[in-house]
Amino acid sequence: MTIRALEQALADFAAERDWEQFHTPKNLAMALAGECGELLELFQWLTPDQSTHVMDDPRQAQRVREEMADVFAYLLRMADVLELDLEQAVVEKIESNRNKYPVHLARGRADKYTNLGEED
Amino acid sequence: MTIRALEQALADFAAERDWEQFHTPKNLAMALAGECGELLELFQWLTPDQSTHVMDDPRQAQRVREEMADVFAYLLRMADVLELDLEQAVVEKIESNRNKYPVHLARGRADKYTNLGEED
Amino acid sequence: MTIRALEQALADFAAERDWEQFHTPKNLAMALAGECGELLELFQWLTPDQSTHVMDDPRQAQRVREEMADVFAYLLRMADVLELDLEQAVVEKIESNRNKYPVHLARGRADKYTNLGEED
Amino acid sequence: MTIRALEQALADFAAERDWEQFHTPKNLAMALAGECGELLELFQWLTPDQSTHVMDDPRQAQRVREEMADVFAYLLRMADVLELDLEQAVVEKIESNRNKYPVHLARGRADKYTNLGEED
Repeated sequence: MTIRALEQALADFAAERDWEQFHTPKNLAMALAGECGELLELFQWLTPDQSTHVMDDPRQAQRVREEMADVFAYLLRMADVLELDLEQAVVEKIESNRNKYPVHLARGRADKYTNLGEED
Repeated sequence: MTIRALEQALADFAAERDWEQFHTPKNLAMALAGECGELLELFQWLTPDQSTHVMDDPRQAQRVREEMADVFAYLLRMADVLELDLEQAVVEKIESNRNKYPVHLARGRADKYTNLGEED
Repeated sequence: MTIRALEQALADFAAERDWEQFHTPKNLAMALAGECGELLELFQWLTPDQSTHVMDDPRQAQRVREEMADVFAYLLRMADVLELDLEQAVVEKIESNRNKYPVHLARGRADKYTNLGEED
Repeated sequence: MTIRALEQALADFAAERDWEQFHTPKNLAMALAGECGELLELFQWLTPDQSTHVMDDPRQAQRVREEMADVFAYLLRMADVLELDLEQAVVEKIESNRNKYPVHLARGRADKYTNLGEED
């Protein structure tokens, strides 16, 4: 399914349950952040290395999968309600970041672009 | 672009900058939640009604667009690193929620599914 | 109990369980944000007016109380680990905000201080 | 200052600026989570070890201090608006966790209490 088709499926799901009344952008932003909080909880006590192997355990993998689906679902729902083209927004963001983070300055550095002019 | 193509564009962007070392699932979950925090800040003082009109102001619209792009970008990056199919995960989540939230019980109610058997 | 005494009680609790190994500032920041996510979930579908009456329902009140305790506990734990004086930090923040948000400019406006010079 | 005195100082600050209208529990929960998001951003690319030394750099230390002050300020403000005793709530939480995480089961393990009965 395309991003657009997923948005439509979620819109239909909400409409069938008369949930549009709850789905204001404000409420959806909260729900999105709430699901991110649940995702954080799956990773909070893991070492970085353990986190890279989180999908090796089927129970953990399923939890990660479900929380990421919840995050994505609310993001899609919010984009639909705001009539915002998520795909186009990411494409533009990549272009913008290409200018903010030129390869010769950003290579191997986790600094914010506003600090990239500085000496290490 | 498909979800898969967006993931590839973001993977290339990271690889060109030698950023894979920072992109552990743990770190990406934090970055994702951090961007959700910035999105929340755009909505925190708005009334629900104001939030539904947030795209009417071009400056606000652009900020919402950028924060949602950041959220989506980190979600896609995390899915790629975990080799998790986001589209399939959402499709399964919708199916699962169809069972948890049957229309005749969930209609017009914002309760969690575990409370749907209760009288109002 | 003072803030300092609460921090000590939480430090003792962690030490008795050999949990200091998990309580890096990075991990505690994640745990703190995760608990905020759970707090958000209690409010996400409420109208602003409903949210002001959330303590009228004993079950909801208890949930809010527990999530806020969790947020506070991780904040205290993080401050202790970082040897940061939370009380002093808030006092300084209030002073700093007094300059950023002078009463005659900020009165009745939810704008960020960087926008306070602008006409409405 | 006691927790109560800090809450009063923040209440006065809000009242002087006629900001009580914005400080519904729902909005404050969002603001609290938004500040946690900013705190996360300071730690997201750090290794656990780097995060334990974050206060060694004066600029980073100041940022951490300010974000933690913001988190605490909104938590205190929310507690005040809800008339909830934060100190008492944490004391009760510690007692409750003493039962959920008995030392002989929880020692050296980051598992949730619901998993503590299981063999490793």
